[in-house]
Amino acid sequence: MAQAKNMYIIVIGCGRLGSFLANRLSNEGHSVVVVDVNSNAFDALTAEAFSGFRIEGDATELAVLKQSKIDKADVVIGATHDENVNIMAAQIAKKRFNVPKVFVRIFDPNKESFCKAIGVECVCPTSIAAAKMIIALNENQKS
Amino acid sequence: MAQAKNMYIIVIGCGRLGSFLANRLSNEGHSVVVVDVNSNAFDALTAEAFSGFRIEGDATELAVLKQSKIDKADVVIGATHDENVNIMAAQIAKKRFNVPKVFVRIFDPNKESFCKAIGVECVCPTSIAAAKMIIALNENQKS
Repeated sequence: MAQAKNMYIIVIGCGRLGSFLANRLSNEGHSVVVVDVNSNAFDALTAEAFSGFRIEGDATELAVLKQSKIDKADVVIGATHDENVNIMAAQIAKKRFNVPKVFVRIFDPNKESFCKAIGVECVCPTSIAAAKMIIALNENQKS
Repeated sequence: MAQAKNMYIIVIGCGRLGSFLANRLSNEGHSVVVVDVNSNAFDALTAEAFSGFRIEGDATELAVLKQSKIDKADVVIGATHDENVNIMAAQIAKKRFNVPKVFVRIFDPNKESFCKAIGVECVCPTSIAAAKMIIALNENQKS
């Protein structure tokens, strides 16, 4: 197995998904920066797990992304509750700063093809939840 | 493979998740009833896929659940945006009407153990999205 390297990861949005990922990835030894427009959101980062940086600001603003040193990032994750913010920040990360790996959370499955077209990986929790329930129901039918 | 039987399924909440499931399950031939407090939500049900019933009402009210013929249901799915509504309706479905299969969408992963304790299967999209991103990142590291 290849040696895992520590990465420089920017997490945009510190809600349930963002804070979970930031805590987890920081705890795994990665360098993590979390960006959120609301500084209260950072309360979800735990002292035990998170040793990264917090930046209060709008991640669709270039100055905020530059402050987060996006030009050095290995990974950018768009995890705010506004999928358009996630996609816009992801586009800047990908096109302007050539960030190798960019993920976004989206809510509208129809935006998946757009994300793919710009080289951004997307995760749609609604689609995943639906698929999981359908699978469980089909298993139920067979039992 | 066992023969799939058509089921009587009540979907509570006609947002993105609920309407997707209702359209899909109705299209597969199941008898589907959708309950939502807001009748505009039913616009997401398509004439091509959905041939079930729509009930406008609050699924935490016993009269509404009775109107949906919950005593005949094989499956109840709690898919509103309020996880407490989902859990409350699921509890009534399970405990009072002995519905064999009850699913809920939850947002707070901490409620998972409570759901399990009352015999309700839960799907937490945030946890699934986080897990999917972590897996993708680990694959990225190895490549």
